[in-house]
Amino acid sequence: MFELLKTDSTSAARLGRLTTTRGVIDTPVFMPVGTQGSVKALDPRELDEMSTKIILGNTYHLHIRPGMDIIGEAGGLHKFINWTKPILTDSGGFQVFSLAKIRKIKAHGVEFRSHLDGSLLFLGPKESMSIQRQLGSDIAMVFDDCPPHTATAREVRGAVDRTIRWAAECREQPRAPGQLVFGIVQGGSHAAMREECAKELIKLKFDGYAIGGVSVGEPEPEMMKAVEYTTPHLPADQPRYAMGLGTPAQLVELVARGVDMFDCVLPTRVARNGTAFTHKGTISIKGGAYKRDWGPIEEACTCFACQRFTRAYIRHLLNVNEILGLRMVSVHNSHMYLKVMEDIRTNIRNGTFGEFRREFIANYVPSRKVLAARKSAAEVGEDDVR
Amino acid sequence: MFELLKTDSTSAARLGRLTTTRGVIDTPVFMPVGTQGSVKALDPRELDEMSTKIILGNTYHLHIRPGMDIIGEAGGLHKFINWTKPILTDSGGFQVFSLAKIRKIKAHGVEFRSHLDGSLLFLGPKESMSIQRQLGSDIAMVFDDCPPHTATAREVRGAVDRTIRWAAECREQPRAPGQLVFGIVQGGSHAAMREECAKELIKLKFDGYAIGGVSVGEPEPEMMKAVEYTTPHLPADQPRYAMGLGTPAQLVELVARGVDMFDCVLPTRVARNGTAFTHKGTISIKGGAYKRDWGPIEEACTCFACQRFTRAYIRHLLNVNEILGLRMVSVHNSHMYLKVMEDIRTNIRNGTFGEFRREFIANYVPSRKVLAARKSAAEVGEDDVR
Repeated sequence: MFELLKTDSTSAARLGRLTTTRGVIDTPVFMPVGTQGSVKALDPRELDEMSTKIILGNTYHLHIRPGMDIIGEAGGLHKFINWTKPILTDSGGFQVFSLAKIRKIKAHGVEFRSHLDGSLLFLGPKESMSIQRQLGSDIAMVFDDCPPHTATAREVRGAVDRTIRWAAECREQPRAPGQLVFGIVQGGSHAAMREECAKELIKLKFDGYAIGGVSVGEPEPEMMKAVEYTTPHLPADQPRYAMGLGTPAQLVELVARGVDMFDCVLPTRVARNGTAFTHKGTISIKGGAYKRDWGPIEEACTCFACQRFTRAYIRHLLNVNEILGLRMVSVHNSHMYLKVMEDIRTNIRNGTFGEFRREFIANYVPSRKVLAARKSAAEVGEDDVR
Repeated sequence: MFELLKTDSTSAARLGRLTTTRGVIDTPVFMPVGTQGSVKALDPRELDEMSTKIILGNTYHLHIRPGMDIIGEAGGLHKFINWTKPILTDSGGFQVFSLAKIRKIKAHGVEFRSHLDGSLLFLGPKESMSIQRQLGSDIAMVFDDCPPHTATAREVRGAVDRTIRWAAECREQPRAPGQLVFGIVQGGSHAAMREECAKELIKLKFDGYAIGGVSVGEPEPEMMKAVEYTTPHLPADQPRYAMGLGTPAQLVELVARGVDMFDCVLPTRVARNGTAFTHKGTISIKGGAYKRDWGPIEEACTCFACQRFTRAYIRHLLNVNEILGLRMVSVHNSHMYLKVMEDIRTNIRNGTFGEFRREFIANYVPSRKVLAARKSAAEVGEDDVR
């Protein structure tokens, strides 16, 4: 199922290959986020053209709209959205604990009110796995308790216990044919709890392990710590997935810490505000500086947008609210994320990842605004729904 | 420049071929509207795939944003938006008389305030032609006085006189290389004024003639009258363009009255509200009726959207505000308009236009809501900018 092809000599970076029934995924991999059954502003052809190998869907959102009766009748999520490659579905845990306003944690799940119409809903290990089975995703995630960054050690303790107990319940649920199930390690920035959670989950023998409880509003050093406290305890021969992260520079650093899989709403979310990712950091294309800039968003970029349009034109489109503007920045940003992962794979393969990492981080100037966008998104659990 | 290939035996419908420096256009033709330099929600590849031969741009809007200094520096509108096929530019007359709030009509143009920032601007024959020359459009329109549907006969009289005088001024202005210039016939629903305006414009020897003062809020019968009062007075060997019209059924009827060229914001405007055009009329895809509809927007349609997605999925996308939803309806609607024109051309060529027209009108159930959308758009001069 997962083949570890190579480990970098200068870091914990890994080159791997994850085989699912719907396709082989070279890792490290970035998975564009299609929360509600569509990667925001993009169509499947555009995703194909940027070599997308797997996308995300979300149990909580798809369960609420359009609902499982409709997706079931369509023959599953792949058929409903007409995407034949792999899909990973998040369990809904993150959303229940952040987006749903009123909730009551019970032994076997969470009672909450829909963020849309206030209707009373219940989601737990059994329900989440059942929905993910009906969605027919290639990789399902366990239903976990994902506390906010501000949780006390006592609260994190409770979340870890619940996460382990619920993971065991998830493990027993039936799956869709060929469906892989990943456990999610919680434990905040507490080394001992991260280790314990990882070890308990490993006993349950999942197909892969995710680092959860990151991208919940924490500052970058704590996020890195949470990952560093977790990866050493995960099996080398299984895939590792850091949930909801991050900026391109963070992805490079997380790969160096042994992470194989990523998803993040940033590339499409900030695109809708006119912010583009480049290898030097982000640029706000709406700015006056690009008024007469006849170059592409990023030189040497091979994406659809950069092959066709100038910054000056895209700036105009954004400023007059033409949809093509945000479409093209979404294309560029998603393509850029996927290209960074491709470059990472090439450099691990060639034994040059250490050099690549050094240069990438030296060139990339992080933006406070972008980090704040990720933070605020996480805090309200938006998950790219707006 | 224009070749009249065939005239239908059962109506005034004509098959023609308009040659511009940037390409040959088979007529009757529909021209998607790219008011601000982008056909709303579509990219140039999508336009190519639906066999778009010519698009529109707008002098008023492009002059305000991004401004002619920027488009000039880009090397003209084609280069700015990266569209190599023909572009027709409207003169700005329609917008000045509908969108700009405060205006003073002077001898050589109109003083008005920008609808955006209130800045004082002046547009007349000289200015409009100069802007269109800088835009480098393949077909420029004269700067006309376009009164609203509610104008009195006296007001229409004044608009006709001014339109003729300004047309003469436009005629004397320098042009971009190869640029064609079309006159615009005004006269409301007054037969004598329409005839007079047409005859005076013909004396000025334009490359084509448009029927203006339609799509200004008038009911369909008056619109048809305005056209019927005009086309018989236009030269048979030159192209005729009905501005801002209409529904697919209206296009078929207008072709039958001898019109060769059309533009209309309807296909993309109503798409953004989830309304799709079919050969049977419009459908509101958001409706519950399509919740479990696993067919395409329209059976047998070959557009990108119908080849890939079901009504149920597009309905879901529209209901959760995913951009892909309005994108796909925009693709379908624009494709449908272009396909109707292709079918019209085929049937005129084959001598079966009379039959085609009868069947088309019998199948197509007009929607009051859609007609109202056109009316309200015209009344506020929106021209698809929202």
